[in-house]
Amino acid sequence: MTSQPSEGRNRVVIESITPSVDAGRYPAKRTAGDLVRVEADIFTDGHDSIAAAVLVRREGPDDVSAHWTEIPMAPLVNDRWTATFRVAEIGRYAFKVQGWVDHFETWRLALLKRIKAESDTLVDYLIGAELIEQAAARATGADSSWLLDRATHLRAGKESGSPRTGPGSRVGEPKNLRTHATDPMLNEIVRRYPDKRYATASDREYSLVVDPVRARFSAWYEMFPRSTAAEPGRHGTFADCEARLPYIAELGFNVVYLPPIHPIGRTFRKGPNNNPDSQPGDEGSPWAIGSAEGGHKSIHPALGTLAEFRSFVAKAKDLDLSVALDIAFQAAPDHPYVAEHSTWFKQRPDGTIQYAENPPKKYQDIYPFDFESEDWAAMWEELKSVFLYWIAQGVTIFRVDNPHTKAFPFWEWVIAEIKRDHPHVLFLAEAFTRPKVMYRLAKLGFSQSYTYFPWRNAKWELTQYLTELTQPPVREFFRANQWPNTPDILTEFLQIGGREVFSIRLLLAATLGANYGIYGPAFELMEHTPVRRGSEEYLDSEKYQIRNWDLARPDSDRTGSLGPLIARVNGIRAEHPALQNDTSLRFHSIDNDQLIAYTKESDDRSSLILAVVNLDPHHTQAGMVTLPLDELEIPADRGFEAEDLLTGARYLWHGPRNYIELNPAKQAGHILKLHRRLKIETDFEYFL
Amino acid sequence: MTSQPSEGRNRVVIESITPSVDAGRYPAKRTAGDLVRVEADIFTDGHDSIAAAVLVRREGPDDVSAHWTEIPMAPLVNDRWTATFRVAEIGRYAFKVQGWVDHFETWRLALLKRIKAESDTLVDYLIGAELIEQAAARATGADSSWLLDRATHLRAGKESGSPRTGPGSRVGEPKNLRTHATDPMLNEIVRRYPDKRYATASDREYSLVVDPVRARFSAWYEMFPRSTAAEPGRHGTFADCEARLPYIAELGFNVVYLPPIHPIGRTFRKGPNNNPDSQPGDEGSPWAIGSAEGGHKSIHPALGTLAEFRSFVAKAKDLDLSVALDIAFQAAPDHPYVAEHSTWFKQRPDGTIQYAENPPKKYQDIYPFDFESEDWAAMWEELKSVFLYWIAQGVTIFRVDNPHTKAFPFWEWVIAEIKRDHPHVLFLAEAFTRPKVMYRLAKLGFSQSYTYFPWRNAKWELTQYLTELTQPPVREFFRANQWPNTPDILTEFLQIGGREVFSIRLLLAATLGANYGIYGPAFELMEHTPVRRGSEEYLDSEKYQIRNWDLARPDSDRTGSLGPLIARVNGIRAEHPALQNDTSLRFHSIDNDQLIAYTKESDDRSSLILAVVNLDPHHTQAGMVTLPLDELEIPADRGFEAEDLLTGARYLWHGPRNYIELNPAKQAGHILKLHRRLKIETDFEYFL
Repeated sequence: MTSQPSEGRNRVVIESITPSVDAGRYPAKRTAGDLVRVEADIFTDGHDSIAAAVLVRREGPDDVSAHWTEIPMAPLVNDRWTATFRVAEIGRYAFKVQGWVDHFETWRLALLKRIKAESDTLVDYLIGAELIEQAAARATGADSSWLLDRATHLRAGKESGSPRTGPGSRVGEPKNLRTHATDPMLNEIVRRYPDKRYATASDREYSLVVDPVRARFSAWYEMFPRSTAAEPGRHGTFADCEARLPYIAELGFNVVYLPPIHPIGRTFRKGPNNNPDSQPGDEGSPWAIGSAEGGHKSIHPALGTLAEFRSFVAKAKDLDLSVALDIAFQAAPDHPYVAEHSTWFKQRPDGTIQYAENPPKKYQDIYPFDFESEDWAAMWEELKSVFLYWIAQGVTIFRVDNPHTKAFPFWEWVIAEIKRDHPHVLFLAEAFTRPKVMYRLAKLGFSQSYTYFPWRNAKWELTQYLTELTQPPVREFFRANQWPNTPDILTEFLQIGGREVFSIRLLLAATLGANYGIYGPAFELMEHTPVRRGSEEYLDSEKYQIRNWDLARPDSDRTGSLGPLIARVNGIRAEHPALQNDTSLRFHSIDNDQLIAYTKESDDRSSLILAVVNLDPHHTQAGMVTLPLDELEIPADRGFEAEDLLTGARYLWHGPRNYIELNPAKQAGHILKLHRRLKIETDFEYFL
Repeated sequence: MTSQPSEGRNRVVIESITPSVDAGRYPAKRTAGDLVRVEADIFTDGHDSIAAAVLVRREGPDDVSAHWTEIPMAPLVNDRWTATFRVAEIGRYAFKVQGWVDHFETWRLALLKRIKAESDTLVDYLIGAELIEQAAARATGADSSWLLDRATHLRAGKESGSPRTGPGSRVGEPKNLRTHATDPMLNEIVRRYPDKRYATASDREYSLVVDPVRARFSAWYEMFPRSTAAEPGRHGTFADCEARLPYIAELGFNVVYLPPIHPIGRTFRKGPNNNPDSQPGDEGSPWAIGSAEGGHKSIHPALGTLAEFRSFVAKAKDLDLSVALDIAFQAAPDHPYVAEHSTWFKQRPDGTIQYAENPPKKYQDIYPFDFESEDWAAMWEELKSVFLYWIAQGVTIFRVDNPHTKAFPFWEWVIAEIKRDHPHVLFLAEAFTRPKVMYRLAKLGFSQSYTYFPWRNAKWELTQYLTELTQPPVREFFRANQWPNTPDILTEFLQIGGREVFSIRLLLAATLGANYGIYGPAFELMEHTPVRRGSEEYLDSEKYQIRNWDLARPDSDRTGSLGPLIARVNGIRAEHPALQNDTSLRFHSIDNDQLIAYTKESDDRSSLILAVVNLDPHHTQAGMVTLPLDELEIPADRGFEAEDLLTGARYLWHGPRNYIELNPAKQAGHILKLHRRLKIETDFEYFL
């Protein structure tokens, strides 16, 4: 148990490596092109110098993954070291950290001190010669002979005569020896051949999953395909969806998300407003998946054919819109799986199949899969094949319905399986559940996650929650996707209704979240009537019936579509890299609880946005916002411009405290581009 | 890589287990008799009930360690679970966590809801019967047949007739079935036989090192044996040390710590005040270990014989004093190791041995061991044997000198080796170095550690530092030992001199630190003159010469020994369990930056102490201290007594805010026992 280690001379310690998730058990998430900053506590006993490096490689086929790239680390403060590298490619990377005692550097620094104190002796140079000879033995080619030559010079002092040979004697030819020993070229060449005999390696390799940029920066538009017909009463088709795409693209979205497109079960079908007694002609819920017409790999006949779906996907791609499909792993009683794979569902002693329930509520139209099935392995494979089927049709994003009601080991496996061959595919977890469960799903591989944002309205709770999401450790594995509404979530705040309310939630979602989404026409048309008081369900919800939306309602009217504001906000997001990440989010003090203020910046700090939102839809609110000018690198000794990207207004601000006033009837918030230097518009532009 | 796991049905997740150090890489520390509270995040997918347990065993010989004790965990909030157990024995323990889906409990809770809603059906009872039969198959003896009988009852509903057999039909004999199904005895017996087929185990076992109580609660007294002679000028002996022991015991200390007692090197011996040119008759530094008379296993001849040392240890034990020996792994040039094991030291190209240095400073009287020696394995064994030698002489505590200048892997190995056979032995790390290095040494096994306490004087820095030390994660592995002075550390604050200054530092050390120590006579006699301005070294330091101390200086005089105050403080520590731990430390608001206030409590909350110290040695300071009465379980609606254990004064306090005034010339601080209920002294005592 405590027998000696095989090598006891690994003197360097490596601890607290970041980024890491659960001590390296799960990969950290990044997107293509990101700079990855690795840090670790690295130190050794005593006073010797150390050196350290990050070794990084892509994971993948052997020929790719065998090659480790070594990046030297540099010390920060307090024994913390760092190195930075860029992950250019989508896929998985692995990195590890190495540290070792650097005897040459120890010698070099001590010698410099001794030279300064005029206390260098011959033996100091002999020690250096030994270290250089050792480096020469590790070196190759010209470097090796150059080093041997240099060592010979350092030994020459000893060989050339008596008065300089005593151990404490002063150096005979100090200038020459000192020049040779402190030559920067010597240092540079020795450093190429570090002595790693007793190097310490980090306890394990750490993984990174590098996703497409859209994992970090996306704007989602959810719409029900069956509600896309131009004329009321008709069942929408993929052709109608295709016709709707330019509208969505003009609003500035880059993901179009469709609820399930499969045949809908007939047994226990629900009527409008979730009525358990449906009538013939009722369309049912798209989440009651499967009928005699097919299951998870089939298309609802009324929507069209597979070819039409592919055409829709292709058209979307032309408009730079990704198509996200809803994956809901559950079956209507008439889903083909139920007959073909009855063991995938829980059998009851009376021979019936266990339907979903939350006692005493019963959902007889839904059979959950039984992840304790004896046949789980085959079931996993089949469920995986559902993803692969739709990937083959051009789908690149999956919005997974209630992943928290399926076994966790399944998700870790299936997402890794799919991303191994299709690393560009993204998964959004729709798990509105307890925080640790949501975080676990993200660790297991979900690329993005819904959040509690819909219910966070007050400044303190937005600040606290968004800070948690955007700081380590959470941000290393959990990517928030902020939705003000969904077909299941018409919040109490939205039920107030009106442009002010929807504008506030839009501005918050789109600027707090580099990833955000809206449940389409219901949002821009500011639908806000619940099915009943106290419910978050929409009245006449599209979940149970076809709706027809008047998207052309004019903006001039106070009840007109919010489309133009949405388009402007999305345009600002696309133009300003500051809004394309969440990790730079910082909240700032503003002396009014109804006003919230925060900045975001681009990685290179060239883009800096200050958002200020009036959380009160009813009254004008004003206050002084205080900015940490130092941190933001805004000079304190001159004015700077805050340019409102929503209105074009320009404010000349001075110092850290500046005045904000927002009348929600006119403008729910500012999205201010902060110009770090005063920009004066004259015939020509110049910067002071 | 992503092939299916062999078992995919382990649906329960176990995360974030505490106590743990670096995700379980190192043991957490406890002392004998402690309650250990294990916590973990435990949850599963969906809505099924789960159960969890901590399994704990002693590490040791196979027959002991094979037996795991299972302790059921209970849920707290937010998916956090806990279980508590007591570690009675000194040694190592291991624990792990198990969690599993509890189908019986899921069924039982759903049935209770259905019964309440009058919606229970026959099939619900049949499902229960199946689960009970499965439990019966896992059960033994009477339990098994009892369960089968109960299952038969639940099945009876189906067998007894037609109207109750349909899947949705209502229960025919509801009362009888309901009574059987919800019988608490049924629940209790099924729970004895949990279905752990798909149980999840924590990723690893977690270790605990259980030390003697003295690791958590100790008062150290350091003294130089050679300075213990009664008459000036004579070299002290172990007999003199033995004669000093009753004095130390009366002061209330329980550890007596001796600087090295070995022969002192003669080569490059240092004279008084670290003079490099020593004179014949100079005694030298005890840390320059080894001469022709022997090394680390020998005794300085002037101190006496091994038998006399053993007598000293025995006498100490009689007084309940542990003897702590200084272990300084370094050699004087004339240490026998240098000749016998020259490869354990770094050879220089000129044939000399590398002495210690911190360029341009040189310490020619000290040779460090070379932990990169080719012969490191034999050197490790020899160094280990030094500990074993002194353990054989009755030493139970080692104060290790500069452990941070020896290789980390050595410490992990040697401490584990020694504690395997001698688990009662303690190690104090004397590493006044960077924080991460100090923490690493503690993780590797040191039982206690010196701290930055000597240099923490202001309220904010004491609060910040002590909070860091006494909260997780640090407190799980690092046990502070707070010293106001050491032979190397006469702080700037102490150099002010006077009773006030020494009293302040004594009160802080002894009440902030359940472990604390003083460098003996120099402290109680308030020695405060540095060797020169700007130095933390004592003038005429005992490190380089023999001193003679007048311990009997009367307390009545302002320059008299601080002994009586020390004895009183140590007596209070011994009497009041609140002061015997650090984990309960909480700082409280007091509206004066020169006053610091904090409480400590015993585990069972029966002992509650509030300490308030005036950090200003010059002026009377006053302020209002605010106590969180709720947290402290002090009723807000009546008065409570604060009894000053130093003076016997009693204060009747009301509410959270109470007045404090401290004149340092009279009293540097209060040590107040808070009586949670008002104690009224009359002819008899009673509690309101």
